[in-house]
Amino acid sequence: MSTDLMPNRYRPGEFDLPAREAKLIARRDAVLGASYRLQYRRPVHFVRGEGMWLYDPDGRAYLDFYNNVPSLGHCHPEVNAAMADQAARISANTRYLEPRLVDYAERLVDTFPEELSRVVFTCTGSESNDLALRIARLASGGEGVIVSSYAYHGTSAAAAAVSPNLGDAVKLSPFVRMVSLPGPAGIPESQAADFFEAQVRSAIRDLNRRGIDVAALLIDSIFSSDGVWVDPPGFIAGGVAAVQDAGGLVIADEVQPGFGRTGTHMWGFERHGIVPDLVTLGKPMGNGFPIGAVVGRKAPMERFGAIARYSNTFAGNTVGIATADAVLTIIQRDRILENALAMGRRLRAGLEEMAKQHPAIRATRNAGLFIGVDIGSAETPSSDRRAMALDVVNAMRDDGVLISTTGANEDALKVRPPLVCQAEHVDLFLATMGRALTTIGGEASSQEHV
Amino acid sequence: MSTDLMPNRYRPGEFDLPAREAKLIARRDAVLGASYRLQYRRPVHFVRGEGMWLYDPDGRAYLDFYNNVPSLGHCHPEVNAAMADQAARISANTRYLEPRLVDYAERLVDTFPEELSRVVFTCTGSESNDLALRIARLASGGEGVIVSSYAYHGTSAAAAAVSPNLGDAVKLSPFVRMVSLPGPAGIPESQAADFFEAQVRSAIRDLNRRGIDVAALLIDSIFSSDGVWVDPPGFIAGGVAAVQDAGGLVIADEVQPGFGRTGTHMWGFERHGIVPDLVTLGKPMGNGFPIGAVVGRKAPMERFGAIARYSNTFAGNTVGIATADAVLTIIQRDRILENALAMGRRLRAGLEEMAKQHPAIRATRNAGLFIGVDIGSAETPSSDRRAMALDVVNAMRDDGVLISTTGANEDALKVRPPLVCQAEHVDLFLATMGRALTTIGGEASSQEHV
Repeated sequence: MSTDLMPNRYRPGEFDLPAREAKLIARRDAVLGASYRLQYRRPVHFVRGEGMWLYDPDGRAYLDFYNNVPSLGHCHPEVNAAMADQAARISANTRYLEPRLVDYAERLVDTFPEELSRVVFTCTGSESNDLALRIARLASGGEGVIVSSYAYHGTSAAAAAVSPNLGDAVKLSPFVRMVSLPGPAGIPESQAADFFEAQVRSAIRDLNRRGIDVAALLIDSIFSSDGVWVDPPGFIAGGVAAVQDAGGLVIADEVQPGFGRTGTHMWGFERHGIVPDLVTLGKPMGNGFPIGAVVGRKAPMERFGAIARYSNTFAGNTVGIATADAVLTIIQRDRILENALAMGRRLRAGLEEMAKQHPAIRATRNAGLFIGVDIGSAETPSSDRRAMALDVVNAMRDDGVLISTTGANEDALKVRPPLVCQAEHVDLFLATMGRALTTIGGEASSQEHV
Repeated sequence: MSTDLMPNRYRPGEFDLPAREAKLIARRDAVLGASYRLQYRRPVHFVRGEGMWLYDPDGRAYLDFYNNVPSLGHCHPEVNAAMADQAARISANTRYLEPRLVDYAERLVDTFPEELSRVVFTCTGSESNDLALRIARLASGGEGVIVSSYAYHGTSAAAAAVSPNLGDAVKLSPFVRMVSLPGPAGIPESQAADFFEAQVRSAIRDLNRRGIDVAALLIDSIFSSDGVWVDPPGFIAGGVAAVQDAGGLVIADEVQPGFGRTGTHMWGFERHGIVPDLVTLGKPMGNGFPIGAVVGRKAPMERFGAIARYSNTFAGNTVGIATADAVLTIIQRDRILENALAMGRRLRAGLEEMAKQHPAIRATRNAGLFIGVDIGSAETPSSDRRAMALDVVNAMRDDGVLISTTGANEDALKVRPPLVCQAEHVDLFLATMGRALTTIGGEASSQEHV
């Protein structure tokens, strides 16, 4: 794999930037760790956000079709008021009795199948996956973890060690096995379930032959970093059952699909008709406030709790809980899922129509407002497809619409608007994308940067 | 070790609670993971916080001498206003250009010795320690980690694996070695430095004999969970040098001592006259908002950044940065360190005076407003000392003052008031503690619960 691990980024010297920006980047590079990256060939800088829009210092508006944290829109006044009101009263920790903590925990758990009855709060999706892996290892007695080929599950040492998407330089755990997904492997949908189950069974066998029991199958219910693979619903069920039969736990990483992004369901795993053992939450839970959670079955959660003290200072503090509570209220009250479903359909239909005019669109996929668009025809060499996708993303950025790339070859557009987008936003997105495809003219206009 | 790992907690059935509380606890137990604990024999419930004070639903005020997150006091209006103002404008992530991120990073790094010139933001102290361990392992090429005997460094899998304080049931990494501290080992201060260095050299040798290179010495600059061990300043220097000579990195865990708690210095390691390679920050950084950081030398930070993508969704977002920036401004403007130093002296002097009246005070230690008080005379059996400390803490809670216990034997009082406490609060704390010591009468009034 020579693919650039974050192709859509600023590279020093590629463009002449305004002095103000160049100076800020120089200061930034001198103080921030070298692990920081700036997105887009020409970095963006925003001073104000409102709903679907971000505004740069010159007052220019950008339509946000990428950020999946502010799922209810940027700077949601009701969410922010809930945060500020609670911060002015008290920010109690979970070692004190706090009715709001219990109220929200009950409301959250009520959105899950009844088997999933317990919750532990965290501050980030990475902490959620890290904790879920600890729970799975304790509850199963195993060490082996099965993930998808280009999975990304977080920044902690344990999460990074099961995240092949981070590239060869970040070492994987010797106990992790990767399984191919049917979509990127070109398997027809009719055989997708069998293919996935066979992959999982093979991974379990390979672990067992080395004396390693399986602790967990850890998967996105929408396979995001693999390229937004979603169909057919239910294709993961056989693999899920195989792991549970082998004594392992199934962890649904809902950090991206959760809280209604699929439109049809609150949680992406429901779309597949399965019930996992543990579910991990993050990004949109507080519409930007750092809060996450692990929701799970009673048995593994009690097994962990009986053995391990888990005291996360900030997690579950009353301010985060009040903020997340406001988010959940708005999702339910404002019928956010219905909107995500309707807008996802409109967007998908527009893309299908566009594909008839633009051979550069190879395929489109979506589940609600989680959309993947493969760029470049099947005959186009993979490096050219990657360069074309990068050109589309950056032409759109220059034209005032924000998206990015994903997938093993980074030639898929990753489109994840806030869930409050309306028809006018979808139509503007489509018009802008059409212009970008015309601009790049079906050919890569830039050299690939490796 | 049969010591209860969190002796100061609620145990069902120990006391009859009001129906309102009993009902809430039953609901809590039915939905939260079993890893949650409630502090104090009779749990507390607060509905309002202001400065040094917490108020229960009946309006009763409790003096907070325990919470080290709201270091500037509960519900600080200026900090909360900074958070709310920024949340209303924009919450940008670190992949966008953002002057506030760079401004704060520079201000923060300026409070460190010049060798420590780079920062990466996180959301929690656990994430900071987890990331520091990743950086140390990559930069050193080693795997071995040396910690103190009862160290606690966080909740992630990697942090828990180097946290012997979590007890035998939470497995330690095979690559971790524990070193005894001179204080709890009864070593005179004149020999403390030599003792500590010998312990560290022995740990390095033991790792090396197994073919394991040392990656890091990870230590609190005030050894908190070991029992608040602070003196003599500088006693860690020889051990620090030994690790650096062996190619390992020194990680100062400043999650508790940092941001001025020692009164004499912004960072606890400065009190010891050493410069670590990496420093981890958390708890008081945002006065309650979830934010942390790793500050470090250029070389290891660049080595990590060149290899690993580290993209922490919430960390460094503009709302967290604006909040932390307000905290740093207030620390510097309001001379918080001077106050911590003066109030720490007043408190220590009062404790020394009280010790003359109360033989139950075995020893007192402090660095600024981080205070440890050993309870029970040297002749008292360790289980009785533990029970006495627990009685003192709970008598004080019933009398309206919050502290807790710590140490290998959990017989030390852990006293960590917000840094804004004034003479009247110190005096009230001392009077309440004096009453509690009189109440327990130098004898353990309760049976130990294991």
